[in-house]
Amino acid sequence: LLTVGIDIGSTVTKGALMSDGAVIGTCRMPTGWSPKETGQHLLYTLLKEHRVSLESVHRVVATGYGRQTMEKAHKQVTEITCHGKGAYFINPANRTVIDIGGQDTKVVRLDDQGNVVDFIMNDKCAAGTGRFLQVMATHMEVDVSQLEELAREAAPIQLNNMCTVFAESEVVGLLATGASKASIAAGLLTSVASKICTQAQRVGVVEGVYFSGGLAENRYLQRAIQDKLGVTLQLSPLAQFTGAIGAALMG
Amino acid sequence: LLTVGIDIGSTVTKGALMSDGAVIGTCRMPTGWSPKETGQHLLYTLLKEHRVSLESVHRVVATGYGRQTMEKAHKQVTEITCHGKGAYFINPANRTVIDIGGQDTKVVRLDDQGNVVDFIMNDKCAAGTGRFLQVMATHMEVDVSQLEELAREAAPIQLNNMCTVFAESEVVGLLATGASKASIAAGLLTSVASKICTQAQRVGVVEGVYFSGGLAENRYLQRAIQDKLGVTLQLSPLAQFTGAIGAALMG
Ligand code: SF4
Repeated sequence: LLTVGIDIGSTVTKGALMSDGAVIGTCRMPTGWSPKETGQHLLYTLLKEHRVSLESVHRVVATGYGRQTMEKAHKQVTEITCHGKGAYFINPANRTVIDIGGQDTKVVRLDDQGNVVDFIMNDKCAAGTGRFLQVMATHMEVDVSQLEELAREAAPIQLNNMCTVFAESEVVGLLATGASKASIAAGLLTSVASKICTQAQRVGVVEGVYFSGGLAENRYLQRAIQDKLGVTLQLSPLAQFTGAIGAALMG
Repeated sequence: LLTVGIDIGSTVTKGALMSDGAVIGTCRMPTGWSPKETGQHLLYTLLKEHRVSLESVHRVVATGYGRQTMEKAHKQVTEITCHGKGAYFINPANRTVIDIGGQDTKVVRLDDQGNVVDFIMNDKCAAGTGRFLQVMATHMEVDVSQLEELAREAAPIQLNNMCTVFAESEVVGLLATGASKASIAAGLLTSVASKICTQAQRVGVVEGVYFSGGLAENRYLQRAIQDKLGVTLQLSPLAQFTGAIGAALMG
């Protein structure tokens, strides 16, 4: 039985193709201006790559902020549910899901059946999201992906501002006074880590803490979050596809 | 008895010279990079303009976010206290002070003696502050001061995002799809008005609502706030100097 999950995020659209409870393919692309077209395009790309016809797919389930635009979907499911389902599928020991997305952050707590017990979602404030790092990286004339390496050996500069707009001025000021990009990068990643940890502590951190989303591969963030929460994070190469897998499982 | 109040804001530094309970002079300048130098410079400018020597001033009181940098001050007082004192001085019927500053917003509730009963201050989030309008005006290639006139006759576009960063993308998108600058300007001012009104409602709106701060002269904002709160706003040509006057009164 084939199912497809499409997770249309504000920044990146992710897809997962599943067959009888196993992930057999994944695909991702920038969401760009049109979530609608991107969702459709990703569906066809994913199917084509795996030589599967749309007719042979039992169900297509859409999630993420752009899920309502997906006409080909048989149903739409919220990202909280999908992230919960996906995280539990990836490792049934996962109880707390931490997700840092391109423009949002969420923390979901699960019971031992993978049901959502509680959650916090922030999609109203750019602070602590991928967007925050994007804005800062632009000022530093580096790519977001370079922040991790830059930060590696540096002592983080403690930033006074969480707000993206105020932190932007702060970073411009720091650069002007000759602070190293490395220590600024470390400070920025530390700030993002502490924002999500505060959120996690509000929901309650239960062991089996899974780090999901596009920034889950960032080792500096992994370490900073582990230090702050005092737990070892569960990681997965499928981290970015957690929501898409959860959606496919709902199919 | 001469006293001086200096209100070192994040964007603009304001000064008031008082003699025996009357305001005899005011002065303002952009705070710029150095609150310390600006505070000092403003003090000397204000005194020089009114041919007053520093020795003849009984007390200099500093307030605002940069107040600690003011070495010449005899004391420092928080902006909440000073705004309360200043608003009560300007009109003893004032009970609720609404202030939209360059990088912060505050609402202060006063008793019938001018004492602070309750307040909310936001200086952590750029949404709803002058900075929000600044960022947007830059994208629209107009000056902040032009937003009022632009907005005058327009139907406001309802913005989906309060966050400065997300609203920025929204405005860029609106401009790209041909929305008029006039209706965007109206939407932006409406958004700022609704943010401060929500804050005011949390503190509790008591009649005698005084609109203070740098944006108090903006008639579009005045009208939008009046509509939302259902009260007539108290206005004053000294609005921007409310904090500085309050500081001078503490001297
Ligand atoms: S303006 Fe700053 S603090 Fe406010 S919502 Fe946006 S990023 Fe967050």
